[in-house]
Amino acid sequence: MMALIEELFPVCRSITGNGLRHTLNIIQRYVPLVIHEVPSGTDVLDWTVPLEWNIRDAYIARGDDGARVVDFRNTNLHVVQYSQPVDAVMSLAELRPHLHTLPDHPDWIPYRTSYYAENWGFCLAHRDLLSLRDEPYHVLIDSDLAPGHLSYGELLIPGQTDRTVLFSCHICHPSLANDNLSGIAVATMLARHVQCMPHRYSYRFLFIPGTIGSLAWLARHENAIGCISHGLVLSCLGDAGEITYKQSRRGNAEIDRIVTHVLRHDRPSYQIRPFTPYGYDERQYCSPGFNLPVGRLTRTPNGEYPEYHSSADDLSLIRPEGLAHSLSVLKQIVDVIEGDAVFRSRNPKGEPQLGRRGLYGTIGGQRVVPADQMAILWVLNLADGAHSLLDMAERSGLSFAAIHRAAKALIDTGLLDSVSDEGE
Amino acid sequence: MMALIEELFPVCRSITGNGLRHTLNIIQRYVPLVIHEVPSGTDVLDWTVPLEWNIRDAYIARGDDGARVVDFRNTNLHVVQYSQPVDAVMSLAELRPHLHTLPDHPDWIPYRTSYYAENWGFCLAHRDLLSLRDEPYHVLIDSDLAPGHLSYGELLIPGQTDRTVLFSCHICHPSLANDNLSGIAVATMLARHVQCMPHRYSYRFLFIPGTIGSLAWLARHENAIGCISHGLVLSCLGDAGEITYKQSRRGNAEIDRIVTHVLRHDRPSYQIRPFTPYGYDERQYCSPGFNLPVGRLTRTPNGEYPEYHSSADDLSLIRPEGLAHSLSVLKQIVDVIEGDAVFRSRNPKGEPQLGRRGLYGTIGGQRVVPADQMAILWVLNLADGAHSLLDMAERSGLSFAAIHRAAKALIDTGLLDSVSDEGE
Amino acid sequence: MMALIEELFPVCRSITGNGLRHTLNIIQRYVPLVIHEVPSGTDVLDWTVPLEWNIRDAYIARGDDGARVVDFRNTNLHVVQYSQPVDAVMSLAELRPHLHTLPDHPDWIPYRTSYYAENWGFCLAHRDLLSLRDEPYHVLIDSDLAPGHLSYGELLIPGQTDRTVLFSCHICHPSLANDNLSGIAVATMLARHVQCMPHRYSYRFLFIPGTIGSLAWLARHENAIGCISHGLVLSCLGDAGEITYKQSRRGNAEIDRIVTHVLRHDRPSYQIRPFTPYGYDERQYCSPGFNLPVGRLTRTPNGEYPEYHSSADDLSLIRPEGLAHSLSVLKQIVDVIEGDAVFRSRNPKGEPQLGRRGLYGTIGGQRVVPADQMAILWVLNLADGAHSLLDMAERSGLSFAAIHRAAKALIDTGLLDSVSDEGE
Repeated sequence: MMALIEELFPVCRSITGNGLRHTLNIIQRYVPLVIHEVPSGTDVLDWTVPLEWNIRDAYIARGDDGARVVDFRNTNLHVVQYSQPVDAVMSLAELRPHLHTLPDHPDWIPYRTSYYAENWGFCLAHRDLLSLRDEPYHVLIDSDLAPGHLSYGELLIPGQTDRTVLFSCHICHPSLANDNLSGIAVATMLARHVQCMPHRYSYRFLFIPGTIGSLAWLARHENAIGCISHGLVLSCLGDAGEITYKQSRRGNAEIDRIVTHVLRHDRPSYQIRPFTPYGYDERQYCSPGFNLPVGRLTRTPNGEYPEYHSSADDLSLIRPEGLAHSLSVLKQIVDVIEGDAVFRSRNPKGEPQLGRRGLYGTIGGQRVVPADQMAILWVLNLADGAHSLLDMAERSGLSFAAIHRAAKALIDTGLLDSVSDEGE
Repeated sequence: MMALIEELFPVCRSITGNGLRHTLNIIQRYVPLVIHEVPSGTDVLDWTVPLEWNIRDAYIARGDDGARVVDFRNTNLHVVQYSQPVDAVMSLAELRPHLHTLPDHPDWIPYRTSYYAENWGFCLAHRDLLSLRDEPYHVLIDSDLAPGHLSYGELLIPGQTDRTVLFSCHICHPSLANDNLSGIAVATMLARHVQCMPHRYSYRFLFIPGTIGSLAWLARHENAIGCISHGLVLSCLGDAGEITYKQSRRGNAEIDRIVTHVLRHDRPSYQIRPFTPYGYDERQYCSPGFNLPVGRLTRTPNGEYPEYHSSADDLSLIRPEGLAHSLSVLKQIVDVIEGDAVFRSRNPKGEPQLGRRGLYGTIGGQRVVPADQMAILWVLNLADGAHSLLDMAERSGLSFAAIHRAAKALIDTGLLDSVSDEGE
Repeated sequence: MMALIEELFPVCRSITGNGLRHTLNIIQRYVPLVIHEVPSGTDVLDWTVPLEWNIRDAYIARGDDGARVVDFRNTNLHVVQYSQPVDAVMSLAELRPHLHTLPDHPDWIPYRTSYYAENWGFCLAHRDLLSLRDEPYHVLIDSDLAPGHLSYGELLIPGQTDRTVLFSCHICHPSLANDNLSGIAVATMLARHVQCMPHRYSYRFLFIPGTIGSLAWLARHENAIGCISHGLVLSCLGDAGEITYKQSRRGNAEIDRIVTHVLRHDRPSYQIRPFTPYGYDERQYCSPGFNLPVGRLTRTPNGEYPEYHSSADDLSLIRPEGLAHSLSVLKQIVDVIEGDAVFRSRNPKGEPQLGRRGLYGTIGGQRVVPADQMAILWVLNLADGAHSLLDMAERSGLSFAAIHRAAKALIDTGLLDSVSDEGE
């Protein structure tokens, strides 16, 4: 995952343009993404796909010697995204309203955008701003805004049913590592994992520009949305913080229960938060007209680590073990999604005699009952056709994995009937 | 409010009689009360309107020199309310069972009543009781109990619908300030406020003698009770304590949620208590046959401040800022009652594009979202025709006022449809 | 109760056999149990009644001098229950797999069983095991396993309805005092108490071997099970620990609420635990095909006191005051079961006038309302045909006994109508 992140880091991405396409092409080397192109001007719900933005160069140069004091070639964060082309000489006073800095972090360059309002600007370290003398500057932004396309990538992995699990990550941020690239890397590797495992559900992985990308996808798939049984937005999955899960708008969706259960049994420290209508693309998936069962998995959430949306969100912020742990949690979530089902005991009246089936110790009177035997007793007690395995795991306090193993042992000895092999 | 309380303080009120009428006449100078008179002997539910009680003078005088040792002219608390006429000379031993004191507060005179059992008595400071010598006393109570009327005042302020908000306060206590007069003063000023504001609901303000007054009103309005959507009993609203809200018997009535919400956003310190079948007229409004959505707002509740029902509940106990804060809380409650409504977003699928409507900042990437923008996002997200503005305020943690402002901004830009203009 | 426990202690009980019959005969001297005999080989649900086991003698003797190093005549715990007959000379190495000890408690003899797997074995103090030399031993178990019967005792105390309260205790443990005999003694005395009191419900007291006994009873009474309104499994009721209540599988059954209420008002310290599918016969009563409203009352639960299932669970562990308190709690539970009912006020609109019915003090204005008057107000306020007396006790925070007394006073003055005399 680190290799993918490192390769993607320097690319100048935005919500449209060639950097975005290049990003998708790199991901395609790992998983067989389909790349979709939506023309500028297309209406998507209440929005319109904007003009395509591409940029070749940009700088602020001293008027006297032409030395670049701000240079796009150093980092693409220097330019406000969607800046219109500029080629002018102006005083510092004229230039000043177009300069963005972070006074509290004078060495960091902020990340700023102006997708839907005509504007242009530069982002720079506050320390560098203070060192600018009052003299004429040559300001150049060699960009163009022209009819083109919005690009996004989609990977559909069909399952036994068209009931679908959605994973969505945004791919529109330029040289930002945790916010953007960590989500892309984890989603890519999760997709490879799902491709290799037996699965009942269909899976859709979306690699999309934030907001306008999810809106475009939703607008084009309104009829397929009813198939989405569970979903997660993935971002900020590589830092050193613990996992934070943000619930779906429903709050009690199956995905909310599943993630909570997995986190509770994974590590002592994690956070579960209620839905709020701000953040990443869960804002769109959970808008009232869709209200999809889509939560969001991050480590430290957007806006809550100091480096957020600045040049300090670079490769040094990413911990390989953070990425690996995030992927491990997602695999466990997929295991519960795939493994959950409802059973009915064939011997609901009294306990079945487990001893003669080899599922119970033969010498009685012991003080403590082994955990795997407790799991078997719980499954038998709750296998009434009304409790799913996840219900049993929650009620017993045992892990889903332990309950799942017990259910398999009971199926093998013919003590359980499947009520549904679809988990719902 | 202080002027009204000071004017009302010396009047000898009881559950019937001329002091009660005089009290209503004074309130009439502030708001156009209608005064109703219910004849003695009228059956009201399980009770009967008692004889009217009036008193002119009362004392205990030493037999030898005629000096008054207890004198009604000093404070009307000296006589047990509804005392029958007495004119007799008796020993201290004969007199003693008719004397009421507060041994734990030897300087205070208690307030005692005997409305529904024939009796007479005097209340006095325990210190004065101890100083009485064993000698003959001339005991006089110049009262009469005769067929007359129960008086109460009612102010109906019609609204756009006959759905009604009820405010009820008792007016039967004689020279007691917090328990009685503070509620009257706050209710009077709240009524003036409601008269001057646009309002959908109808409002009924009741100024009634405790228990028998609310019973009489309920008996005479059984058919109108279904119109009562929200109600509050008001009392003890002038002391230095924090606000205490006592829930309606239902516990989850709209008024319970409204008051809880207002208090949570008003000051850090307040109390919410469940209903109990003791206290003021909420006992009657919340009896099982009516079960009205009527809670009770006080500062320190009845019986929980030491001066309660004694001569120490005098004007010095009243804090003008306590009265003002109580009135402010009630105005906020009325604002929520009036402002709550259900809306449906016209763009429920995905977020509507707020930027082009001037409701969203144009430079993206900022770390923190302003509070008024969060309110707009919350309203849009929950405007699904199933959530009221109060629901949104509760779920978002924002104040009703902030949510209400956001809803107005969204209505102004045509993004919301009203589902109901009646708030229920 | 101590006398009964002392008499029962030495008897060699198992899940079948003459020791079990002897135990039932002793209990019959206190209450008129009917003893049922179920033949070996009878199918009961998923199980089969096993052969009857009887044992006369057992020992391990030194090969050289015949001295008994383990002797059944010292304590019947020395033999693994349901050991097959053995008469052989063998080395310590051959014998070792058949020897059971408690290394952590080297002076205690464990209690072990092998009901459903052919085996034999001895239990002994770990200290004694360590002292055995490596020499030939004569091993004898003079037992037989032969077609016979499973015995259990049942006492049916008919009430006014066939709605039934079930009390069940196991009687299959040999010389163990708290786990087994305490439950038997308390159940026996509770049965005598119920016989002597007026009661609406029918009561069934079961004295049964664990697991196979409850399965046999359930198999034979499948049609009567619908009549069981409340039930409790009784065990471990004599130790010094506080009461622990284990809820029924339903978790919110009436019995769960009743026991919780009684414990809350009985002593400050007690535990309420959710159902788990391990423990005593609640495992069978609460299996999904029956799902009976049966909880379990113990003091320290099975497995949670060190002496559990060992020779240290002897008469010294039993506290007479523990037994007495357990019985007292059960009597209170029966009082709630019998006393609970639903009433409707005849004067639901407003409070009825209590003063003229002698239920209210005549001098008004007091600061504090007496507890019995509060109970009367609560009952009147909640007597709407929807609240049971237990509901009222829970909501008011008053004890069921106080609410019950208030209801009786109100019935006596004609203020309440009974909605149901059956409590449900």
